[in-house]
Amino acid sequence: MTSAAFDVLGIGNAIVDVISRADEAFLGQHGLVKGSMMLIDEQRADTLYAAMGPGIEISGGSCGNTMAGVASFGGKGAYVGKVRDDQLGAVFGHDLRATGVSFETPSAKDGPSTARCLILVTPDAQRTMNTYLGACTGLGPADIDPKVVASAQVTYVEGYLWDAPEAKKAVLKAFDAAHAADRLVSITLSDSFCVHRYRSEFRDLLRDKVDILFGNEAEITALYEVATFEEAMEAVRKEAKIAALTRSEKGSVVIKGDETWAVPAAPVAKVVDTTGAGDLYAAGFLHGFTSGKPLAECARLGGIAAAEVISHVGARPEQPLRGLV
Amino acid sequence: MTSAAFDVLGIGNAIVDVISRADEAFLGQHGLVKGSMMLIDEQRADTLYAAMGPGIEISGGSCGNTMAGVASFGGKGAYVGKVRDDQLGAVFGHDLRATGVSFETPSAKDGPSTARCLILVTPDAQRTMNTYLGACTGLGPADIDPKVVASAQVTYVEGYLWDAPEAKKAVLKAFDAAHAADRLVSITLSDSFCVHRYRSEFRDLLRDKVDILFGNEAEITALYEVATFEEAMEAVRKEAKIAALTRSEKGSVVIKGDETWAVPAAPVAKVVDTTGAGDLYAAGFLHGFTSGKPLAECARLGGIAAAEVISHVGARPEQPLRGLV
Repeated sequence: MTSAAFDVLGIGNAIVDVISRADEAFLGQHGLVKGSMMLIDEQRADTLYAAMGPGIEISGGSCGNTMAGVASFGGKGAYVGKVRDDQLGAVFGHDLRATGVSFETPSAKDGPSTARCLILVTPDAQRTMNTYLGACTGLGPADIDPKVVASAQVTYVEGYLWDAPEAKKAVLKAFDAAHAADRLVSITLSDSFCVHRYRSEFRDLLRDKVDILFGNEAEITALYEVATFEEAMEAVRKEAKIAALTRSEKGSVVIKGDETWAVPAAPVAKVVDTTGAGDLYAAGFLHGFTSGKPLAECARLGGIAAAEVISHVGARPEQPLRGLV
Repeated sequence: MTSAAFDVLGIGNAIVDVISRADEAFLGQHGLVKGSMMLIDEQRADTLYAAMGPGIEISGGSCGNTMAGVASFGGKGAYVGKVRDDQLGAVFGHDLRATGVSFETPSAKDGPSTARCLILVTPDAQRTMNTYLGACTGLGPADIDPKVVASAQVTYVEGYLWDAPEAKKAVLKAFDAAHAADRLVSITLSDSFCVHRYRSEFRDLLRDKVDILFGNEAEITALYEVATFEEAMEAVRKEAKIAALTRSEKGSVVIKGDETWAVPAAPVAKVVDTTGAGDLYAAGFLHGFTSGKPLAECARLGGIAAAEVISHVGARPEQPLRGLV
């Protein structure tokens, strides 16, 4: 590999989170499955928003959170994602650029508004997400510049992008550009429901294209349709080059060929809001990886970043992660 | 007084806060005076926003915060303020209505966008505010319905409204409507710079129209151009019917004629962000007052509400204030 302008190039759904506290009864009344991400249309978004309590708006999007985390560690990141030229789009762009991440994707001039994720945080600190994709559906291959992809050590994408057909094409174009330049590609499985929607495509990708896979316990067991984490570990070992699997308070497991590293979770004084835990784990891992650290150290950095983000409301770090290493 | 549909009707600048952490050097570089509220135009807002770190968006506006607090105590509130029909305007309206406050002021269909307040929180938890008034300048007498004013026990307004000439006219119309219906009117001095801008008008109002005055130590000494709080107390005693004066960690002092009540501050484990302290003090006081409580108890409720809001980021209560009494 030649030297890289960017450590990580992230491609994701560019979303502003609207976070509100809710009780279990609210989830039941509105047919929400705790802990999941559900796609909603604009009408449903309006109805649900009207029923929610007061919120705070904070930039999110799984991969956007990861890139903010990479930058917070001191890594060099670039991001590709689609917002509208509206107020929430400006908020998203500001918040990402303010972390130091390069974000040059042109905003949509018409069509649906910037994506919003209505997040209900229950008293147990679990988050339940309802995403209106809006302008994200406008992301496409034209937004991928192969030269930028070639200038990043790792191209990292969300499984969530499969929910927008043109965005999936953009990802595949980026993967090809990365491999043509001898760079690596990485994907997160995103959500167990997302795995159910695209299982066979994800498994094909994993065998053929992906260098580093991220997933949590629910996602990896869903991918292989097995009952236990141990079965999923053995299945993924045969297909993935490197898999980094998170297990909440049990820490994470990294698998590469015959080797396995189990790394404990970093301590957290009080879990306030689990939103972004997986995103920030990926940030720490990828920062370590692109800095040439051993895999166990990558997992440890992932754990540190995840611990920071679940100790407060919002899915991006509040304090510089480089200070926590 | 006949029975009232609303305990408090608030009139204020309808603003969405954009809150970001900053160090003292940032304030110096951008010529900001710590602890103050500075009015900025759109160009300056764009420049300052571009220089700020990542933010969170959360509905604010001094009087909007107060009304959210009144509702959080279980009081019945209505609010008058002007937003644009844009995304941040929708956020403001949602967040206020979700607390239970009635908010029927029509949004502007054109003209400047919804107001934003760029708030820098320094490591000492002090907030420095930079307000782009935007759509707030469109608030005018036509937005005041005398019947709604007549249906509220107390009409409460911000001194900040004097920064928009039409909004000031709206306030004066509301005050006349309130007094015509044998209701009370109340004002907060808002900010010491605001007092410097409108000192003589505020003093005329205080003598002629205001039933309950709110102000902090800096504001009340600015109003009377005196050096000490004690001098200001004696000056306001001669002019105000009731004055509720806040003194940060020294608590508050209520003055009515010859009587004085000094009430200690409520304990706070850790001061995180002082934004909204005065607004929430007014909320607790007015809720107590409109519930028929003695003045010392009103001050105590104000202190409880202020303590809650400074213990976290954002200027509106995170937990129901009625549960803290």
